[in-house]
Amino acid sequence: MNHLTHSDVTALLLAISVLLLCARALGEFFQRLKQPAILGELIAGILLGPTVLGAIYPELQGMLFPTDGPVAIALEAFTTISITLFLFIAGMEVDMSTVWRQGRSTIAVSVLGLLVPFAVGWLAAFFFPYRLGFEGDLSVHVFAMFFATASSITALPVIVKILMDLNMFRSDLGMIIVGAAVVNDLLGWLIFAVILSLMAKSGAGGMPIQTTILLTFGLAALLLTVGRWAIEKLVVWAQAYLTWPGGIIGFSLGLSLLCAALTEAIGIHAIFGAFLFGVAFGENRHLREHTKAILDRFVSFFFAPIFFAGIGLKVNFLTGFDFGVVAVVLGLASVGKIYGAMWGAKLAGIAKQEAYAIGFAMNARGAMEIILGMLALQAGLIREKLFVALVVMALVTSMTSGSLMQRMLKRNKPAKLVDLLTAKRFTARLKATTADECIDELVGLVGVGEKVSMEKIAREVHSREQLLPTGLENGVAVPHARLSEIEEPIVCVGLSEEGIDFNAPDGSKARVIFLLLTSADKHASQLELLADIAKTFGTQTAVDNAVECVGFTEFLAHVRSPHIPQA
Amino acid sequence: MNHLTHSDVTALLLAISVLLLCARALGEFFQRLKQPAILGELIAGILLGPTVLGAIYPELQGMLFPTDGPVAIALEAFTTISITLFLFIAGMEVDMSTVWRQGRSTIAVSVLGLLVPFAVGWLAAFFFPYRLGFEGDLSVHVFAMFFATASSITALPVIVKILMDLNMFRSDLGMIIVGAAVVNDLLGWLIFAVILSLMAKSGAGGMPIQTTILLTFGLAALLLTVGRWAIEKLVVWAQAYLTWPGGIIGFSLGLSLLCAALTEAIGIHAIFGAFLFGVAFGENRHLREHTKAILDRFVSFFFAPIFFAGIGLKVNFLTGFDFGVVAVVLGLASVGKIYGAMWGAKLAGIAKQEAYAIGFAMNARGAMEIILGMLALQAGLIREKLFVALVVMALVTSMTSGSLMQRMLKRNKPAKLVDLLTAKRFTARLKATTADECIDELVGLVGVGEKVSMEKIAREVHSREQLLPTGLENGVAVPHARLSEIEEPIVCVGLSEEGIDFNAPDGSKARVIFLLLTSADKHASQLELLADIAKTFGTQTAVDNAVECVGFTEFLAHVRSPHIPQA
Repeated sequence: MNHLTHSDVTALLLAISVLLLCARALGEFFQRLKQPAILGELIAGILLGPTVLGAIYPELQGMLFPTDGPVAIALEAFTTISITLFLFIAGMEVDMSTVWRQGRSTIAVSVLGLLVPFAVGWLAAFFFPYRLGFEGDLSVHVFAMFFATASSITALPVIVKILMDLNMFRSDLGMIIVGAAVVNDLLGWLIFAVILSLMAKSGAGGMPIQTTILLTFGLAALLLTVGRWAIEKLVVWAQAYLTWPGGIIGFSLGLSLLCAALTEAIGIHAIFGAFLFGVAFGENRHLREHTKAILDRFVSFFFAPIFFAGIGLKVNFLTGFDFGVVAVVLGLASVGKIYGAMWGAKLAGIAKQEAYAIGFAMNARGAMEIILGMLALQAGLIREKLFVALVVMALVTSMTSGSLMQRMLKRNKPAKLVDLLTAKRFTARLKATTADECIDELVGLVGVGEKVSMEKIAREVHSREQLLPTGLENGVAVPHARLSEIEEPIVCVGLSEEGIDFNAPDGSKARVIFLLLTSADKHASQLELLADIAKTFGTQTAVDNAVECVGFTEFLAHVRSPHIPQA
Repeated sequence: MNHLTHSDVTALLLAISVLLLCARALGEFFQRLKQPAILGELIAGILLGPTVLGAIYPELQGMLFPTDGPVAIALEAFTTISITLFLFIAGMEVDMSTVWRQGRSTIAVSVLGLLVPFAVGWLAAFFFPYRLGFEGDLSVHVFAMFFATASSITALPVIVKILMDLNMFRSDLGMIIVGAAVVNDLLGWLIFAVILSLMAKSGAGGMPIQTTILLTFGLAALLLTVGRWAIEKLVVWAQAYLTWPGGIIGFSLGLSLLCAALTEAIGIHAIFGAFLFGVAFGENRHLREHTKAILDRFVSFFFAPIFFAGIGLKVNFLTGFDFGVVAVVLGLASVGKIYGAMWGAKLAGIAKQEAYAIGFAMNARGAMEIILGMLALQAGLIREKLFVALVVMALVTSMTSGSLMQRMLKRNKPAKLVDLLTAKRFTARLKATTADECIDELVGLVGVGEKVSMEKIAREVHSREQLLPTGLENGVAVPHARLSEIEEPIVCVGLSEEGIDFNAPDGSKARVIFLLLTSADKHASQLELLADIAKTFGTQTAVDNAVECVGFTEFLAHVRSPHIPQA
């Protein structure tokens, strides 16, 4: 069989499209529930794989996702390329400069946050391997080393997302966490690379292990020093002389796959090369955000979902699930990681509450843990039971660390306009022609069920408006009031084609009017909402586009999916 | 063989990265020479394939790009996915509304521009098949139908690019050409789909031909009417309720692959489904430019180069080259197309010169012709000789139609800042502190070799500056003069950290200063350059970024690769 037949092509395209569509659908669903998208993507694979679909309709499952023949090979090749590109993107997020910026604290958190769970993991796996899903025909030494590494890994992308959600990414604490996670990630992956080559006994082409290890560290050192410098020059050159952004996109993807081929050839997995290249490439002040966005979005929403859903096709999560193993893995890894990182933070002189928050943040594992587990499973380093336990551990830690951090720091997530908009509290055609009428009309949209009467709301908003008019520039107005009776912010929106005079400084008539009602206790909510409105409706074009909306869905689409001007 | 071994993965990654890097490198090279990138991408494949590398180092070639075994299957699968996604993007560019806008002229040009070359091609292929590389074991009827279709196809993307280069895209003439090309493309692909299914004798799964044809037209009609409407609703919904742009990216790619699987299943090639979905998806006023850019750039600079270079791996262009066949194919196709489209244009009352220009524009074939040829070759519809001739025809028509149009309409390409910047005429550190000193310093950069003396240039620029100061807003100044002695525009650029007073209306000191010298005869050049500068340096950020440049390459990178703000 050297060519794909007509039905092979059909099967391949069907398999990839079904994987992608289901993964994205469930990914979006879980994101709506404020859970990580990867959870939904994995579940999509579990539903389509042997665990569910295979148990109910084994024939259909085998037809859609064959484990044999050219389509199986093609799918495997495609997921290999997917994971390689995903690691390239993950590498791009690693910003080494954060490590230097916070210096001592970062080093303390990362070193203890790595060593403690590593030691705990190693001891547990070495002395009680069977409790961790170890099976007789493996090497206990390599197994213990792997479990130690798996316990100490951290997922940079998850942490970055949690910090951004909490508006803490640019804070000192946020930078310490990110810096420590960067060091953790780099060291963790290097150790894992060494384990994989140990495992392979003799590297590819009969290369001795020492050579593989030496080449691995050599390549890492080279890429992160001279390589980084050369890539920076290359990027400037490419931006000056090649088509843009096509030049950079083609070359960065090509070079990341080339580095992947190189590491695969020296006996460690392809993804290390792509990851290292990503680190060297991404940390580059000349690289444009637009180029990064194209690479990141396409890989994250095309290749990554296919890979993560593909994991569910390979493993039976029902037969592989062992409650004892899951509990032990989750407990050991979390305790080691949280206490290790916290201990490091305390040594660096960070207060107790914040040190705990750092520990919780560093405990998020996410995609990286799952990829590590998958590679170990493929390499025969672990069996299904431990793999399933690692996946559960990765998901549980990712899902909990945000809210644990939030509770520890008593931080509220900033109020966001997009979360507060509802169809009931929106009207595309305001009847009002004056500011007073408009306020009454918008207050009318609040509806029943609030602890405060509409009359009181209207009174408060009117008196606030008389104090100082709320018309902004570009045709936006934000009548508002703080009320002691309400807890969560309320936003009502009205559009007016003719415009209503809210005494804006630029004399413009308001065409998009937001009524903002916030709790009298939470001072910040109102400012956060105002900032969000100013950002979203800061340009004339944004307001013009919004006014043209004929319904709530279109309006919401404008807020959630902004028009970004292209070159 | 059901799994990719260590060395298979290495080989696969190496093959893809080498293909991509070489294709992009040669693609960029030919773009510098003002030729289409696809020319370079094809040549990269020819160099890496049996034609060149295979002839010199057959073993190395066989190792890099095996034709047998799992790596060959994986590569074939990857190029199949690549071409499917490329057609999705090509479909996105098809804007049916252009057809209705110009009405009668568009219909006349497209119908005659399709029918005449179709008739010429059919007659030639039916009566003189051997002159066109026909070989004995094929069906003359199907062959003639194919050649007729191949003669009448037009390449929308190439035409769009040519019109944009000539600044004619939004003109009436430009819209007629684009509209006609859209109709041409849609009809041409549908006819080709029918031929392929005729060729397969009985469709997939023993489906009778009539059913396949019926389903093809049914699917096309459905997607372009109800489908378009449903997709528009879906896009608004996704933009309102899903993550952005991830939601749209995942779903559009997933659905395009699903449509591809569907058309493959009903017995026509996968790419038709992707193309039709692209047409239905792209024509959507709610879709954001940013989303389109991500899809377009990634596919155009990752998947497409790999596919086009991959063509060179499959065909030996040396043994397949037959001068007689190439000349006949090129001549027949061009004459039929140019005269057909011209005739249509004349019937619609368009003047002779412009009618010729329309004919030349419609003659550009580009990527579409090559894809058509590749599919026919794979389906056994044609042999290597005709395929090579079609490729040459596609390239020659793409390379010449722009300059033929330009000559016919006596249009100059607009002067572009980026084409006029040189390292010699750039200084990152102006010594001047006054406008007069600055002008002298910049004039000093013009250098010898011009027909006019530096003294005269300086005199003209100074007197122009005294007439009306040339300081613009945001810290840009554009001292300039029109000189009868020079032909091509000259641009000198200087950066000044402290700023130089050029009497700007906003009182800002100029930090980026352009000296513009244009021909006294060509009134437009100066305005085009001024417009280009205003666009590129219209924001404070753009000027700030430019002033920080330490050398010419960095500065050029800022002009060619702008910073686009991200959400």
